Amino acid sequence: MIEIIGPLIRSADAASLNGGSGGVEKPPPLQKQLIERLQQAILAGRLPAGSLLPSSRLLAAEMGVSRNTVVIAYEHLAAVGYVIADQQGTRVSPLSSATARDGETPSQSAAPEIAYAARVGQFAATRTHACNTFPLTPGTPALDRFPLTAWRRALERSMEHALPVALGYGEPAGEPALRDAIAAHLRMARGVRCEGAQVVITEGAQEALNLCVRLFTNPGDTAWVEDPGYRGAKAAFNLGDLRTLPIPVDSEGMAAPPGAWLAHPPKLIYTSPAHQYPTGAVLSVARRLALIAQARRSGAWLIEDDYDGEFRHTGEPIASMQGLVDDAPVLYVGSFSKTMFPALRIGFVVLPRAIAGHTAVALQEMLRGGHRLEQLALARFIESGEFGRHLGRMRRLYRERQQALRDALGAHFAPGQILGGDCGMHLTLRLPPALNDRILVERARAEGLNPRALSSFALHPDAATNGLVIGYGNTAAERLAPAIQTLAALARDIEGTNANAKGTSRAPATEPR
Amino acid sequence: MIEIIGPLIRSADAASLNGGSGGVEKPPPLQKQLIERLQQAILAGRLPAGSLLPSSRLLAAEMGVSRNTVVIAYEHLAAVGYVIADQQGTRVSPLSSATARDGETPSQSAAPEIAYAARVGQFAATRTHACNTFPLTPGTPALDRFPLTAWRRALERSMEHALPVALGYGEPAGEPALRDAIAAHLRMARGVRCEGAQVVITEGAQEALNLCVRLFTNPGDTAWVEDPGYRGAKAAFNLGDLRTLPIPVDSEGMAAPPGAWLAHPPKLIYTSPAHQYPTGAVLSVARRLALIAQARRSGAWLIEDDYDGEFRHTGEPIASMQGLVDDAPVLYVGSFSKTMFPALRIGFVVLPRAIAGHTAVALQEMLRGGHRLEQLALARFIESGEFGRHLGRMRRLYRERQQALRDALGAHFAPGQILGGDCGMHLTLRLPPALNDRILVERARAEGLNPRALSSFALHPDAATNGLVIGYGNTAAERLAPAIQTLAALARDIEGTNANAKGTSRAPATEPR
Repeated sequence: MIEIIGPLIRSADAASLNGGSGGVEKPPPLQKQLIERLQQAILAGRLPAGSLLPSSRLLAAEMGVSRNTVVIAYEHLAAVGYVIADQQGTRVSPLSSATARDGETPSQSAAPEIAYAARVGQFAATRTHACNTFPLTPGTPALDRFPLTAWRRALERSMEHALPVALGYGEPAGEPALRDAIAAHLRMARGVRCEGAQVVITEGAQEALNLCVRLFTNPGDTAWVEDPGYRGAKAAFNLGDLRTLPIPVDSEGMAAPPGAWLAHPPKLIYTSPAHQYPTGAVLSVARRLALIAQARRSGAWLIEDDYDGEFRHTGEPIASMQGLVDDAPVLYVGSFSKTMFPALRIGFVVLPRAIAGHTAVALQEMLRGGHRLEQLALARFIESGEFGRHLGRMRRLYRERQQALRDALGAHFAPGQILGGDCGMHLTLRLPPALNDRILVERARAEGLNPRALSSFALHPDAATNGLVIGYGNTAAERLAPAIQTLAALARDIEGTNANAKGTSRAPATEPR
Repeated sequence: MIEIIGPLIRSADAASLNGGSGGVEKPPPLQKQLIERLQQAILAGRLPAGSLLPSSRLLAAEMGVSRNTVVIAYEHLAAVGYVIADQQGTRVSPLSSATARDGETPSQSAAPEIAYAARVGQFAATRTHACNTFPLTPGTPALDRFPLTAWRRALERSMEHALPVALGYGEPAGEPALRDAIAAHLRMARGVRCEGAQVVITEGAQEALNLCVRLFTNPGDTAWVEDPGYRGAKAAFNLGDLRTLPIPVDSEGMAAPPGAWLAHPPKLIYTSPAHQYPTGAVLSVARRLALIAQARRSGAWLIEDDYDGEFRHTGEPIASMQGLVDDAPVLYVGSFSKTMFPALRIGFVVLPRAIAGHTAVALQEMLRGGHRLEQLALARFIESGEFGRHLGRMRRLYRERQQALRDALGAHFAPGQILGGDCGMHLTLRLPPALNDRILVERARAEGLNPRALSSFALHPDAATNGLVIGYGNTAAERLAPAIQTLAALARDIEGTNANAKGTSRAPATEPR
């Protein structure tokens, strides 16, 4: 065996190898070494699948370690599946596969032509996960201000009260306690007309959108999206094989062209009325009423994505579109990614009362419930008022941060180009046409900043959608000024390069003031 | 105000109301009463949206409580969203909706004709969530034997190491540490050829199936399913608007008719080779090789659902189909619902190496990561060997329970009708045609037992699919004999009724022995 796995290194050996000098690095414990050597030999195929290992007594003698060291090493290797112990002794797992040892790429010639779903090719790369921890990322809340202690206490309480039953399957639509808590909160805070029975808990808002698609559309149906708008809505419509019609957005929000209802009758209409994403426009009451009336006439459903309406910063709160009239044809979608934290992955859709009965069987088959402890903890968190207090603290924090961002943008960029800010955690800055937003964003990433290009939210990018979507949720007020200074320097640099390339002397739009 | 919310009840009042007798029930604390009265008045519309509440000083005087009691009550109501406090004072939430107070059902005449997705009507009700905690439920593990302490320790460690960063968005395909741990485990325990980069973490096995559909099929494509087979596969194909072709199953597993490859070429083929669900057949090696070769020629993908292969009870372990040959066109799907617990909702699919690159962008747009603490805890649980030890304990436990179930079935039902049992947590019992399995299951539920009807797994139910799928995972060995005795009594009762109705004297198939 020693010729396969090699001798173990002892402190004394290590010292002598180092010539007894002071710079001796202590070798790992013998047991750890033995485990690693055996694992490597198995992974490399030097100890092939099914081969019998020496008895613990024998191996201990050979390696010069205590028998107990070998017994514990074998026990660990059995627990992690490298070996199997039975009456015949300890054998290398008979199923251990050869992937790790051959390490070759598959022979491409043997591979068949791979046919992917058509929709796979329709996705455009719009997000880079790795940058989401950078400053200025839109949509990421202040994770370091989340009340962890209170949340862990709520989790602990759920475990004490609900285990082990809550390890099992839950109701497909989610824990009733959470559905009730959400309904009560939405009635009061957002004017949504609902009971807990109408609330369906989903894996974040994205799965709520997917659920709307699955319940109400057939492949080839038409869905309207705001343009520029939330890419997740387009992804959901893409998954449902819908035809997506971009609808322009102005300062009053989504502005459907008069002929569109007849020319491209929609089954689903995606809107973010409280704070259009990403332009920040608030959908006017006149348009809300018109949309509801038209949707009702056409048999279409409005998806109201209330993604950051909880963080209202200016003026009177604006009630949800869902609650504007009785039985509005609205599917109200929300999530706790911004109000709690993204990794919680709890979103929801409020279904109209009339359809709950028709969809019960389909929901049973589509959803599995689960994450019960987290859901019960969240219900407790809401009911105890912790959630409301956290929202209040975050509202104040984000208001401060938004003001700091406005000040910084005012100091470096041309005035009058800032959109949005009534709610939420981002501002949108329009850029002059000469300053390509994607180039600026790419350069910003290299500097460790993560604003998004406004044009990446557009299906038909044009001059009006050249800009930056700048998040302030995850960026401390005092870090905003230097971050915007960096952005402005990059912008000047790009504009300078453009000007030189064109040989013109056009004044940069982003002059320091 | 007191005329709206009524006077509070004090201990002294309560005592006098009870005539000073010994049976006095103590009223709730004044503060709690005040909160509840105000909430009820708001919900009932007696305190309308936007109305100003009296100052804390005034209300305290009116209600005869300390000012602090009112301040705390207002603070709580603000936190849960019933009231809003600002410079003008404390007002009832201006958005509070009227749902709760009108409580009327919507006027059905005004509701438009609702058009659901065609697929909504294709779901058949097959599961009743409420019964999933009953004895004999297939697929539910021994929740009371789950090592909660070790799991909570792993969760605690993740929190200590990964917070607050792990509150944010994670990699769409899941935490790299977990993907690596799963790959290492599958290589050793199931002979799967894979690296962590091929593993995509999903919301349980069901979302893994949905992901396979989304990546590799277009609406109208054909998918093969085992018949009888797992309903979740049919649900996933239904969601993808696929045409589902049922393929018969015999004692060697899925048996595709020779002409099917040409007549109904599949894009996806769903199989459960280690332990066909629910018949328990093991797919023979000859059929595995033939399926792989044919799928390769046809450009089809095999979904290998290894739902309970970890709990192998008899003979040598059987390696996965994925690892049988190099670059098999296999999408290997698994979950931790049975090996850990269902509410964890962590499943996965192992994608072939060749396709990882092509699907990266689509996966980025389709998945959001999340549940990072749970994923990191699970990685730790696997790597530390806790998972392997738990599997070993459960394997022994389920083996004992299966034996107890076999003994009990042998005592009450005709011999030779038990299928499966090489792996997992269920046995399948075939019933004589006269004994309708759905009727028996319905009666069993009324007695608090939850076996499933074998016919409910069949797309084309016939005499061969009349039976019971009986779970022993969540049922203690000593409870199995009485449970089966109850089932047998119900069966005799149904058969007796049938015999009387037909006026025959046919001997019952389920005679006591």
